[in-house]
Amino acid sequence: MALWGGRFSETGRAELTEFSESISFDHRLYKHDIAGSKAHVTMLAATGIIPQATAGAIISKLDEIKVMIDRGEMEFKFELEDIHMHIESTLIAALGDEGARLHSARSRNDQVALDIRLYLRDELDFLIDGIRNFQRALLELAAGNPRVIMPGFTHLQHAQVVLFAHHLLAYVEMLDRDAGRLADCRKRLNVMPLGSGALAGSTLPIDRELVCKLLNFDRVTTNSMDAVADRDFAIEAASALATFGMHVSRLSEDIILWSSQEFGFIELADAFCTGSSLMPQKKNPDVAELSRGKTARLYGNLTALLTLCKGLPLTYNRDLQEDKIPLFDSLDTARALLNVYPPMIATMSINADRMRAMASDPALMATDVAEKLVELGVPFRTAHHRVGSLVKYCRENNKALNEVTLEEMQITIPEATAEFLTLFDPEASVSKRELPGATGYNAVAGQIAFWQNKLK
Amino acid sequence: MALWGGRFSETGRAELTEFSESISFDHRLYKHDIAGSKAHVTMLAATGIIPQATAGAIISKLDEIKVMIDRGEMEFKFELEDIHMHIESTLIAALGDEGARLHSARSRNDQVALDIRLYLRDELDFLIDGIRNFQRALLELAAGNPRVIMPGFTHLQHAQVVLFAHHLLAYVEMLDRDAGRLADCRKRLNVMPLGSGALAGSTLPIDRELVCKLLNFDRVTTNSMDAVADRDFAIEAASALATFGMHVSRLSEDIILWSSQEFGFIELADAFCTGSSLMPQKKNPDVAELSRGKTARLYGNLTALLTLCKGLPLTYNRDLQEDKIPLFDSLDTARALLNVYPPMIATMSINADRMRAMASDPALMATDVAEKLVELGVPFRTAHHRVGSLVKYCRENNKALNEVTLEEMQITIPEATAEFLTLFDPEASVSKRELPGATGYNAVAGQIAFWQNKLK
Amino acid sequence: MALWGGRFSETGRAELTEFSESISFDHRLYKHDIAGSKAHVTMLAATGIIPQATAGAIISKLDEIKVMIDRGEMEFKFELEDIHMHIESTLIAALGDEGARLHSARSRNDQVALDIRLYLRDELDFLIDGIRNFQRALLELAAGNPRVIMPGFTHLQHAQVVLFAHHLLAYVEMLDRDAGRLADCRKRLNVMPLGSGALAGSTLPIDRELVCKLLNFDRVTTNSMDAVADRDFAIEAASALATFGMHVSRLSEDIILWSSQEFGFIELADAFCTGSSLMPQKKNPDVAELSRGKTARLYGNLTALLTLCKGLPLTYNRDLQEDKIPLFDSLDTARALLNVYPPMIATMSINADRMRAMASDPALMATDVAEKLVELGVPFRTAHHRVGSLVKYCRENNKALNEVTLEEMQITIPEATAEFLTLFDPEASVSKRELPGATGYNAVAGQIAFWQNKLK
Amino acid sequence: MALWGGRFSETGRAELTEFSESISFDHRLYKHDIAGSKAHVTMLAATGIIPQATAGAIISKLDEIKVMIDRGEMEFKFELEDIHMHIESTLIAALGDEGARLHSARSRNDQVALDIRLYLRDELDFLIDGIRNFQRALLELAAGNPRVIMPGFTHLQHAQVVLFAHHLLAYVEMLDRDAGRLADCRKRLNVMPLGSGALAGSTLPIDRELVCKLLNFDRVTTNSMDAVADRDFAIEAASALATFGMHVSRLSEDIILWSSQEFGFIELADAFCTGSSLMPQKKNPDVAELSRGKTARLYGNLTALLTLCKGLPLTYNRDLQEDKIPLFDSLDTARALLNVYPPMIATMSINADRMRAMASDPALMATDVAEKLVELGVPFRTAHHRVGSLVKYCRENNKALNEVTLEEMQITIPEATAEFLTLFDPEASVSKRELPGATGYNAVAGQIAFWQNKLK
Repeated sequence: MALWGGRFSETGRAELTEFSESISFDHRLYKHDIAGSKAHVTMLAATGIIPQATAGAIISKLDEIKVMIDRGEMEFKFELEDIHMHIESTLIAALGDEGARLHSARSRNDQVALDIRLYLRDELDFLIDGIRNFQRALLELAAGNPRVIMPGFTHLQHAQVVLFAHHLLAYVEMLDRDAGRLADCRKRLNVMPLGSGALAGSTLPIDRELVCKLLNFDRVTTNSMDAVADRDFAIEAASALATFGMHVSRLSEDIILWSSQEFGFIELADAFCTGSSLMPQKKNPDVAELSRGKTARLYGNLTALLTLCKGLPLTYNRDLQEDKIPLFDSLDTARALLNVYPPMIATMSINADRMRAMASDPALMATDVAEKLVELGVPFRTAHHRVGSLVKYCRENNKALNEVTLEEMQITIPEATAEFLTLFDPEASVSKRELPGATGYNAVAGQIAFWQNKLK
Repeated sequence: MALWGGRFSETGRAELTEFSESISFDHRLYKHDIAGSKAHVTMLAATGIIPQATAGAIISKLDEIKVMIDRGEMEFKFELEDIHMHIESTLIAALGDEGARLHSARSRNDQVALDIRLYLRDELDFLIDGIRNFQRALLELAAGNPRVIMPGFTHLQHAQVVLFAHHLLAYVEMLDRDAGRLADCRKRLNVMPLGSGALAGSTLPIDRELVCKLLNFDRVTTNSMDAVADRDFAIEAASALATFGMHVSRLSEDIILWSSQEFGFIELADAFCTGSSLMPQKKNPDVAELSRGKTARLYGNLTALLTLCKGLPLTYNRDLQEDKIPLFDSLDTARALLNVYPPMIATMSINADRMRAMASDPALMATDVAEKLVELGVPFRTAHHRVGSLVKYCRENNKALNEVTLEEMQITIPEATAEFLTLFDPEASVSKRELPGATGYNAVAGQIAFWQNKLK
Repeated sequence: MALWGGRFSETGRAELTEFSESISFDHRLYKHDIAGSKAHVTMLAATGIIPQATAGAIISKLDEIKVMIDRGEMEFKFELEDIHMHIESTLIAALGDEGARLHSARSRNDQVALDIRLYLRDELDFLIDGIRNFQRALLELAAGNPRVIMPGFTHLQHAQVVLFAHHLLAYVEMLDRDAGRLADCRKRLNVMPLGSGALAGSTLPIDRELVCKLLNFDRVTTNSMDAVADRDFAIEAASALATFGMHVSRLSEDIILWSSQEFGFIELADAFCTGSSLMPQKKNPDVAELSRGKTARLYGNLTALLTLCKGLPLTYNRDLQEDKIPLFDSLDTARALLNVYPPMIATMSINADRMRAMASDPALMATDVAEKLVELGVPFRTAHHRVGSLVKYCRENNKALNEVTLEEMQITIPEATAEFLTLFDPEASVSKRELPGATGYNAVAGQIAFWQNKLK
Repeated sequence: MALWGGRFSETGRAELTEFSESISFDHRLYKHDIAGSKAHVTMLAATGIIPQATAGAIISKLDEIKVMIDRGEMEFKFELEDIHMHIESTLIAALGDEGARLHSARSRNDQVALDIRLYLRDELDFLIDGIRNFQRALLELAAGNPRVIMPGFTHLQHAQVVLFAHHLLAYVEMLDRDAGRLADCRKRLNVMPLGSGALAGSTLPIDRELVCKLLNFDRVTTNSMDAVADRDFAIEAASALATFGMHVSRLSEDIILWSSQEFGFIELADAFCTGSSLMPQKKNPDVAELSRGKTARLYGNLTALLTLCKGLPLTYNRDLQEDKIPLFDSLDTARALLNVYPPMIATMSINADRMRAMASDPALMATDVAEKLVELGVPFRTAHHRVGSLVKYCRENNKALNEVTLEEMQITIPEATAEFLTLFDPEASVSKRELPGATGYNAVAGQIAFWQNKLK
């Protein structure tokens, strides 16, 4: 029977119990629930609300319950609704009246608010570590291939020559922002809600600051109604993870493209691919595809959390129980992505020759010609137009840009000199781009060193 | 080992297996997978691709496997990836070479496309029935309270008097459109994809029409590439269910409002409420709140499915495996809502006196006064403005509309006669609204009869 | 001054007026508002609620107002809030008391519900036509290239050889479902709401069936509260258009891939591309990219509409005014896509040689070998495994599949005969796939003929 | 003609121009585009890439162009695509070759990235100020009503007595987190992208640090590919604004509820309400409803931005042009909400008597009884159960909790003393809740003082 049942004469039917239960998904909060209860009971004793001996008995029993759940020895039942009731009723079954003192000056509303914050705080720490690990995998691949040249794309068209390492480091940057957003979320949520009661605080003389200190929060919440009604942290975490998923989807898209027969830039290790039930030759980049697909869940979960909270009056409404499944799913999905991606990156084979071959397309160096003209004093728009005319000339005469003679070049670019014919070398093109953030050998080596230092 | 593993020399690591597996959620397709395989193998024998005896052996083994899974006796393993592999490898383990003939002229791509369609078809039929049941519950409550009067709201402000039954029937209309959308989806998906192979059909002389007929589809798909790349049916179902969820959220909002101390229009049966761990007097409309909250999942799942398919090149991409979790969750959520709502409606107590008391607010009849003026030949805008002036007069003089004397009324409404003073009776107001679709006693009784006939 | 202002003593400030106004976006409803008003006033006269002469005067003035707006001669002002007020107040300004009779037995709630349905009905008709046109463009390209062979992809990996025409027809199928969904939506919304009043119908003796007939609806709405609270049609249209956008995003992705230097399958006409402000050689598939990007708006609009309606109590709430911007934007976006896509398809150049070259990859025919073994009686799974071993052998020996000798082939496929060496011809592979829906020359020609007939 | 047109021989058709243009929405970036160009040209001169005199001429012309646009004197044309081209072509028209030097070492990709960051930085500053203003309005209302008592709600059921000021301060807390998220976003985006070129940096010897300093950025971007491909800032801003919108939707819901006849807690000033075209007595809380509705746009825009970026390969893709409309709309919507909400709060009338009357429901004090028992040493769960039994007793005997005699109370609560009968006083209940964050008079006064200090 539910602990709140004193008032009710009817018994809930099975499907209603199932409809309302949360134990099937909130059981994962048990460690944090127990940690929260231990801090609470320590405080209850410290303030004299309950005897010290009672607190000691409760704490030691809670430790046992934790071990029991660790070992999978607690049977979860829909009738006991949620993890909080499972733990408390086990405690009361063992300690009787003493156990029944635990919930003094506490409501399920502030208890849940505490537990999710504790849980999410740990998860965010874990995910931030995972992101650092992901960055390291990309960084190592970059560091191991510092001079591999590839065509850089805009609009999925060859644009300019870049270093493969530079391309990889772009993702290191994105992941860094992801870690930053998760850290901001963690900081904002690290506020202690217990003592907010159901919505109005408590009439008992509890010491919220002590609980705050015991559980390592930055401060206590300062409005009890907000404390129980707030799910901003779930939305903020889900939003940061949706953006992380977006970045993963972009990297996955790159990897899928590079793995295609048409690109042929890389080959994934077999472990990260699967074959086909019908086509024996297939080697599909399934992990990258599934990763791209999992972005969908991260977006869906964010939509769900935002929808959930829309238009709810203050304070706690039962709708909010639905926050957990999307939040947990986003956390789990991010974990799964962080599990598979670093080894996939680490074991990827690079087809440097194929990349270099595609990078030898002289059109990739057209901008260099325009910028050479600027160096010679030609206004950029004029320079741009002249090179455009050269491209058109080549196209009409079915020649590559580096196949024209100087005389031909001078038809559209009167300023051209013999030096212009040397501008179509990919390595030379890269080595001229040494600005901060650009793709030059030294600039990229500098970035690699920067990240190696930051991530070590 | 995975059945497609001939080409691979490396062994997948546990976490990769876990990342890629779908057995944890697609096992629910087993009945439909087996039904599809039985039709396929029947056809393979009929066309002479495999011997009749082999087909017989396979079919009878598949029946055994179904029973095995029904009884929970099949052990699901991540290494076998999905339900299709579990069933086929059990078959091959039992029958050897004979079992290995089942997958002839079939790919997992068209097999999955078939299974989901078969499964979804059944689910949609079930949900449509559930919606009809939900309509019946609303209809019975309406039929049992044909003369209960309440204030009708726009902007959550008292607008005009309506019948409580009329309010309930509004939801019957919404649910009817929901059922229509699900039926349209079912009709559009009822096309047989098997024989599309991985993407290009088969070189074997299969008979797709026979499979179509055996599985009771309307026709075969007419483009093999579309057939394996298409997930429109999942999106369409999820979209129809999101709209259904929106309707449930509106009814839930009404029920939550009506249950508040301020409204006091209804009381829910105890079984559909819970108490509080802190506040002993609470009786919270949890089922209605959770139902409103579950709308969030239905929206999130739709977002996920749309996101999933965005920008995928043809044909099948592994991303599409991620279609199942949101689709299944939407179906399950709709089922759950359809389970709890009809009994909640059926057991709701109506506080007709409170509704009638709130409906006696004479301002609710202000429109009747304006329309009476129109009957007398006053242009509507003039009539509207006069009644507006009367409302203002009453407000300034701190009187209700039905507290003014005829003389007072004539200050702002010169045309007013003694009859005007009788226009503030709620029952009279309702009984004047007998247009088709309006809230008059007879009009609503007619609608109740219409639905009783349609839903019997 | 607003027409509803009788009751109010304060004047709204400019920013409030701006916050509440809808004229800036609902002015596009003017034709439908006028058509609705004409039908309404015709009915008011027919039922004797207003004199015939008044109706005549109103109708002829409404026709003038329509011309005035057609010509851009009506000045829209925020103070008049919406298009309905603009038209009615112009009418009253012209006709005085006679014009003030128009709004008899009508509320803005049912008037808006009518206008949007009328408008959306026309838009859906237009979009369905546009989709047919889009299908025709794809069909013509397919019909003009009936024998062009390309690699078919799953997982963006070469899978099996297909006809380019078959690939195009896959999109014809998708668009057909889109048209079907829009047609279903149109059918479901074609119900006449006028006469529902603000929420409760009217006390005046109007004839709803006459209005229904004049405006060519299928039937009248049967619950006045639902009629003013319902926005299902907007959600359903936005949802169908989101799916349409998803299809466009997939086709766009294919086109962008095909246009890349690595694929080189097609070249878009210059008009559908742009260059770069920095890189003179660039020819970017901007229209395809923007089209893919516009899917985002279609998804966002659907999310907005669903969010909007979540948890609203009955009946009309002012929130619903926000339905128009996302609905209109989805309709406009679909129109824009339907404008640009057919000519882009029609002017695309096909690089058949490049497609054929990539299709000559013998691995694309590996399935044919496996199915040949099935023909010879080898169980499919065994056949699949043998071909897998051959692929592995080739890979280890750095040979293409069609470079092995018969003896080599027999190492892994003992059943191989000389005929097996001929299986690697792409044309032969296609011509063996003549099942309904498959990619064989005749099968595809049949589909082309089918669609030519359906779309003519 | 477009400036990139050198390569093209065909002329774009009108509808294509319209499809691709962004001037209709990106013109609002003109100030930031000009500021960016001035910094760029200053740097070009400082590094000797262009003559100082040229830079001077360009800067002074750019200032004129800004004034021209300020005054609405620039004609925007679809053929010139975007605001960047409008400004540059005006410059070139005026200055000829000198103007054509402006775009040296710059691409539209890094230019756009710069402009949006500059623009968004200003907008975020503005919105943060607006949020502070909103907080002040709530705070003043709280400070002006420090002792007004109301029922606090959970599950929209009466839970415990709270101060109205405490309820308002809950929103001050939410808004504070909103401001924090916007500030974090601003900090993360304040990185200078110019010099990233199209994707690979530049070969010209520009000085990125100088531009960074001139435009007051924290640092330069460190990866050119990321710099042009990144739209995280738009997503992060849209996400923070979606959460802000969610908070507004909750406050709006509270206000709409409180304005209903059933609650009657407040009355909004007429300016924030509208009447009805049909019902003369109506006073609808339209601004609150529209505000709740506008949440939908904020959610939809976030969905759009996330969808947009999903699965895009590096680096810039034209899809990204579609970032602006949803981003701008979210910013505009937030502005509009921040415009109307503070005056609506400031002019709201409080019906303190009605709130107090509803707060006198003795059931609101049930928790106080349970906590009194805990003070007496009764275990909380036992105390809770006893009070539950008392509630049940009262219900069965049709009495309010404060109507029982001491003897009756002792039936279910043996420990009850005469003091227990005094626990049902709302003011006493509030005054016992003086914990940090709770609803006691002093605790709330302390919070008011805290915020007054922080927001002054």
